[in-house]
Amino acid sequence: MTKYYRVLIDCKDEKGLVYKISKAFYDFGLNVENNREFVDAQNGKFFMRSEVSGKFDPLALEAELHLVLPARANIRLIEPKPKRIVLMATKESHCLGDILIRHEANELEAEIIGVISNYETLRNLVEKFEIPYVHVSHEGLQRAEHEERILTELEKFGHIDYIVLAKYMRILTPEFVAHFDERIINIHHSFLPAFIGANPYKQAYDRGVKIIGATAHFVNNNLDEGPIIAQDIIPINHTMDWKAMRNAGRDVEKVVLAKALKLALEDKIFVYANKTVIFD
Amino acid sequence: MTKYYRVLIDCKDEKGLVYKISKAFYDFGLNVENNREFVDAQNGKFFMRSEVSGKFDPLALEAELHLVLPARANIRLIEPKPKRIVLMATKESHCLGDILIRHEANELEAEIIGVISNYETLRNLVEKFEIPYVHVSHEGLQRAEHEERILTELEKFGHIDYIVLAKYMRILTPEFVAHFDERIINIHHSFLPAFIGANPYKQAYDRGVKIIGATAHFVNNNLDEGPIIAQDIIPINHTMDWKAMRNAGRDVEKVVLAKALKLALEDKIFVYANKTVIFD
Amino acid sequence: MTKYYRVLIDCKDEKGLVYKISKAFYDFGLNVENNREFVDAQNGKFFMRSEVSGKFDPLALEAELHLVLPARANIRLIEPKPKRIVLMATKESHCLGDILIRHEANELEAEIIGVISNYETLRNLVEKFEIPYVHVSHEGLQRAEHEERILTELEKFGHIDYIVLAKYMRILTPEFVAHFDERIINIHHSFLPAFIGANPYKQAYDRGVKIIGATAHFVNNNLDEGPIIAQDIIPINHTMDWKAMRNAGRDVEKVVLAKALKLALEDKIFVYANKTVIFD
Amino acid sequence: MTKYYRVLIDCKDEKGLVYKISKAFYDFGLNVENNREFVDAQNGKFFMRSEVSGKFDPLALEAELHLVLPARANIRLIEPKPKRIVLMATKESHCLGDILIRHEANELEAEIIGVISNYETLRNLVEKFEIPYVHVSHEGLQRAEHEERILTELEKFGHIDYIVLAKYMRILTPEFVAHFDERIINIHHSFLPAFIGANPYKQAYDRGVKIIGATAHFVNNNLDEGPIIAQDIIPINHTMDWKAMRNAGRDVEKVVLAKALKLALEDKIFVYANKTVIFD
Repeated sequence: MTKYYRVLIDCKDEKGLVYKISKAFYDFGLNVENNREFVDAQNGKFFMRSEVSGKFDPLALEAELHLVLPARANIRLIEPKPKRIVLMATKESHCLGDILIRHEANELEAEIIGVISNYETLRNLVEKFEIPYVHVSHEGLQRAEHEERILTELEKFGHIDYIVLAKYMRILTPEFVAHFDERIINIHHSFLPAFIGANPYKQAYDRGVKIIGATAHFVNNNLDEGPIIAQDIIPINHTMDWKAMRNAGRDVEKVVLAKALKLALEDKIFVYANKTVIFD
Repeated sequence: MTKYYRVLIDCKDEKGLVYKISKAFYDFGLNVENNREFVDAQNGKFFMRSEVSGKFDPLALEAELHLVLPARANIRLIEPKPKRIVLMATKESHCLGDILIRHEANELEAEIIGVISNYETLRNLVEKFEIPYVHVSHEGLQRAEHEERILTELEKFGHIDYIVLAKYMRILTPEFVAHFDERIINIHHSFLPAFIGANPYKQAYDRGVKIIGATAHFVNNNLDEGPIIAQDIIPINHTMDWKAMRNAGRDVEKVVLAKALKLALEDKIFVYANKTVIFD
Repeated sequence: MTKYYRVLIDCKDEKGLVYKISKAFYDFGLNVENNREFVDAQNGKFFMRSEVSGKFDPLALEAELHLVLPARANIRLIEPKPKRIVLMATKESHCLGDILIRHEANELEAEIIGVISNYETLRNLVEKFEIPYVHVSHEGLQRAEHEERILTELEKFGHIDYIVLAKYMRILTPEFVAHFDERIINIHHSFLPAFIGANPYKQAYDRGVKIIGATAHFVNNNLDEGPIIAQDIIPINHTMDWKAMRNAGRDVEKVVLAKALKLALEDKIFVYANKTVIFD
Repeated sequence: MTKYYRVLIDCKDEKGLVYKISKAFYDFGLNVENNREFVDAQNGKFFMRSEVSGKFDPLALEAELHLVLPARANIRLIEPKPKRIVLMATKESHCLGDILIRHEANELEAEIIGVISNYETLRNLVEKFEIPYVHVSHEGLQRAEHEERILTELEKFGHIDYIVLAKYMRILTPEFVAHFDERIINIHHSFLPAFIGANPYKQAYDRGVKIIGATAHFVNNNLDEGPIIAQDIIPINHTMDWKAMRNAGRDVEKVVLAKALKLALEDKIFVYANKTVIFD
């Protein structure tokens, strides 16, 4: 039976890598439907993403690739199927709602297995879509304790591919993040690294900028400093106070988050040196 | 004889300002060809820019406006004519060349009365356009001494409306800037406030952003912190090292600087609270 | 009691209009919170939109304005309140879903009083939000007959301010459109006037363009030729077939339609000479 | 001695092409510094562009590639060196000036060997840069006769890689174009296919669009219908008459034309089915 796989490879760069990889594909009789490579010459790193199909044994292909590629090559053969994602949100509905609508329209290669929020505000919206909504209030709790409860809820969901912070307005500790390395996607409401931290629209207003933006990034130990996946901006002007900026910014936030999420779901992102290589 | 004037007013906001101003225009028999107002409700400030024409005495109009407007109103009646500008540059030609070409095509309401540079590099280009090129080397000089020499050269030019830093890569001291309050326009090669300081493209590369930009701003005492006039961005990707970003960024830099310069030349900018109100 | 009104005026241009209008506002003791004017000098037309507040009699103000303005001035005093809108759609959910989510989040100054579709496809989505969904199939019907049935359903809704065609994929006859002059907003999936007519993404693919876009416009007698309210684009490339373009285009479509809808709901659009004057 | 080459291949798609090509590169001991492929699955076409270096015999490599690739494969080995270009213009200087400045700054992989114009207007600008300016007036001439004279002048320049129409405002006949197949680059001042033909800004104004743009394309037999290389847009609004649009559009025109020219000079464009495949 014909199998479809995405093959993601990153390793030390050396001469002949494309030849060796494409030879393996050829020897296995594969159709290569899409091929993207990138060499970071400065750091001597090679990245490749291929979409292949054929009647073949994926494990044998993986073994063959390990044989011909440099030691410690990172090789992933991924069968396209809906990834299991959990959304986290606080009170704002624009990003969450946008993902729910895309999910409903089968735009996303994902199954939303649940939504976790520190408020009840969004329950009504989420439950319209028959998706479990778990309220984990942070009130009266230490941060560690709150996160512990969230982790307990997350565990109940079983396997999770990605956690999407769809305007989840609390800071996650390095301890929490460590459980989901390169698997938490956040939307920050500024074009990072401008306006790191709280209320970027207020900061933008105070500074008098003429553009505002949004940044989707993986979350790592340092707040707002994880690898950037996608960014976009909109022009603004002096007539807009920070609330008008925030309202205008919502359209950018939701489009940027959705773009980043799609890239992740379609296995188009490599993370390297706190940056991303994206084959979009 | 019909006169054309730009009337720029900013003052404390109060009820009836538009009525009082438009009454004055009406009483003086003026045609109002363009009218823009903005009230910063939060700070109780009123801004208005009108283009008027008619057979009238500008001084009498100014006096009348002072009579009807709140005390300490800032009223400027400006007759449109080419402003006298000096360009300062270092070694890169893209912004300078772009302004020279626009000047040559009469796109700018300006007369370029000279170019000052700390290198000889751009002399050949500038002199093609029969514009005086003054080389003021900084080598072996203290910053204050260097700026003193520049000031001496600037004085020789006579009246100067604006100084345009077209990729002038040296920091100006508050003492220098104080001579030209809100009259020095700089192009910074990042979307401020991201990547303040040296080599923003290197910083952008290191941070792994997906957009780069440029910011034109008035220069004040604090480097890169003056009022922003115009900003724009371009998308970038992982294949670009910082030199590729710098090259791509040049097109944004020159367009943003030209845009800001035109706004200044056409008296469309109010500066207030370290921000700009722009009637474009 | 303090009243808030939007005052929209368009009339033949003549000297002193701003003075006369602002005098009326002043005489009525109004606060003018926002003021936008535009003179189309070529056609001798004047447009003004003001947001005023105060303790006043709107009918008296309207009468006063008619007294001081040129004959046949079009004067509208509009009290801000949610407008009653009906959405029409066919099978695609992205625009419809986006409006539903915005509505749910109180982003829109509108009440969605119903959705009409020629298919059952979107019923499930719409009814999640407790909004009436009316299926008016076109199968086996003449166009006139189908529209007659839609009109009957629309009448049942009572007063309707705007009809929003959120990817309603059937052509409306001039007879239908005549019932809702300048009150039907459509989203066309190209940057008009490029790719008028059926399947613009297919046309765009065949032509090999490097940008695709979307256009929100009022519907008039001629398909795709009504006054344009808003447009935007996204870059595309050779790797995208027309289905990929269509998918990418959805994000532009929904943002452009929402933008146009908000402008209409906030009474920021004048229609004139098959164009729009927009005070955004 | 190490040689640097760009290898451009397009041929019928079949299994194993990347393998065969990369094997040839490997067998010749080449470093592959950059690799881009694209398969047009619908049309069964394969495109690849590689940047290779090494001590090798280009003719032998070309022969080897012909051996392993499908019959009638189009294989080009191009040594990077400045291409010889001729600019043609009429009266407007913004595109021409922009290219002259870029040329002066060594931004372009090109040598401008001359400028041809049907007016004298731009002579002064061009000669500043010590570039030959040839005036070929069209006055009193039949189109064929005028083009004959231009051809005569072009022949005097010797080998020409590209002709760049930098706002050359006359239509070229198919007979003229046939001499320079896929070697004439034009800038059209609209986002094609909108506003084909004369005065697109006037057309845009009349239609009331909210964006205007520019399109760089190869010239073929049908005016404005050649393969599109690059496009971009800027937002506009109701305050702009067509002259204001034209002025604003100039910045887009020059940036888009420069972008297209760079892609051509760096051999990054394949033309196919009246479209372009671009490896930027």
